[in-house]
Amino acid sequence: MARSASGESVLERVVRIIEAFEPATPVLTVSEISRSAALPLATTARLVKEMAEHGLLHRDEERRVRIGTRMWELAERASPMQRLRETAVQYMGDLQAAIGHSTQLGVLDGNDVLFVERLSAPESVTNVTQIAGRLPVNASSVGLVLLANAPSEVARRVLRSPLRGYTANTITDEWRLRRELAEVRQRGFAFCPGHIHPDATGIAVPVHRNGKVVAGLGVVVPNDDQAWALHRTLLVTGMALSREVSGPASGTDLGTLIDTRRPVEA
Amino acid sequence: MARSASGESVLERVVRIIEAFEPATPVLTVSEISRSAALPLATTARLVKEMAEHGLLHRDEERRVRIGTRMWELAERASPMQRLRETAVQYMGDLQAAIGHSTQLGVLDGNDVLFVERLSAPESVTNVTQIAGRLPVNASSVGLVLLANAPSEVARRVLRSPLRGYTANTITDEWRLRRELAEVRQRGFAFCPGHIHPDATGIAVPVHRNGKVVAGLGVVVPNDDQAWALHRTLLVTGMALSREVSGPASGTDLGTLIDTRRPVEA
Repeated sequence: MARSASGESVLERVVRIIEAFEPATPVLTVSEISRSAALPLATTARLVKEMAEHGLLHRDEERRVRIGTRMWELAERASPMQRLRETAVQYMGDLQAAIGHSTQLGVLDGNDVLFVERLSAPESVTNVTQIAGRLPVNASSVGLVLLANAPSEVARRVLRSPLRGYTANTITDEWRLRRELAEVRQRGFAFCPGHIHPDATGIAVPVHRNGKVVAGLGVVVPNDDQAWALHRTLLVTGMALSREVSGPASGTDLGTLIDTRRPVEA
Repeated sequence: MARSASGESVLERVVRIIEAFEPATPVLTVSEISRSAALPLATTARLVKEMAEHGLLHRDEERRVRIGTRMWELAERASPMQRLRETAVQYMGDLQAAIGHSTQLGVLDGNDVLFVERLSAPESVTNVTQIAGRLPVNASSVGLVLLANAPSEVARRVLRSPLRGYTANTITDEWRLRRELAEVRQRGFAFCPGHIHPDATGIAVPVHRNGKVVAGLGVVVPNDDQAWALHRTLLVTGMALSREVSGPASGTDLGTLIDTRRPVEA
């Protein structure tokens, strides 16, 4: 791989340029990209030009730059999440119609939940997630169902890393998190009142494909005494979606008994 | 930009590797990538390794390669289509509930419609589109509304290129296409009975953002005598979506009179 004087490869610099585009800054000038990617202006200009020629970036008449349609198409068309998202969005629509609040689908990526789909309702409570946005696994209900079903080396790594808190209710203590994960595994869903925002409750269930948890399906509803009852709606939707993504030959194999009694402390 | 002995840049080779992953071939071995990208095996192996280190590709335990989650995240999170898709999927869910068949959202890209979102119903008729899939603009109802509202140089380019046919009903004649586009502009929607498959009818309307057509919204329904009446459902949904994506300050400015009388020949 060709390297610059600083020892970086071309690919490293291309990735740094793409990383400059974030949800809050989808349109940038070449000098903004140069600053954000910490690359010389001439190098940035040359790479942006070539990336635009390949459709990875798009430059408008005023020479402002954004992610190109071709980049989106290449990433999307063979994405392993495509079939999952296309199927899930139907069930997310059902949930939204039945519950009237935001629904979201997330997968585990490093120590984060990466949200791959989201439907928001006009009357939704506060919801900080966005498509292709992230949250720490310990903070989000979707994160807890994913972590509760993750391989033990993944759970170990997350449990030993710093756990970020959003409110006094976020689980940031390793041992409290271990107990919570055991409970999530036992009852089959995560219930997180005020863990990210005092006014919002996250509830999430696992999505299984052929017995393996591949995603978490969640809703964000008001943090009130109506929230707990919604776990049943989530459970049946999660099971229906799991059956569909598993194909006709297999059940969802939820395996253990699901215990949905309200915990005493909740 | 660093170039190989053959004069190709690293970026060109990286793009060729990514292009090897298509909807029908989302998982490939390094030798399959090498063949598909027409690159030497050693070069392919080296680039795949570096791309996997950056998360652009993912290699599983059996060393099979697919598009990486990080690539999807980078392309998606700052994508200009993200807000449009997130808003549109709500209206597409409404349409699906009201009509019971597949709905899709497409944008113009070159001589093709690129489908950026799709909801399919279990009882849907044949629908060849997929998310991040393409169709020639002349063949699809979404393509006709996009082309009818495209800048004149775009329309000119498409009209002079070879027009692919799927059935005897696909419009492949330049002058028939010109007449059809004028009709689509006048009545505000495209109606394509049997243009892609004899059993299916495509109906599509434009989505305006601040007076400019940014996407086409379509349904695929059975090719029967009930299909025509559905254009009204599409029209109101297209106008509602256009108002929402345009923001509070502006109307959708549909401008001309919409004439929804059934054409004599239909």
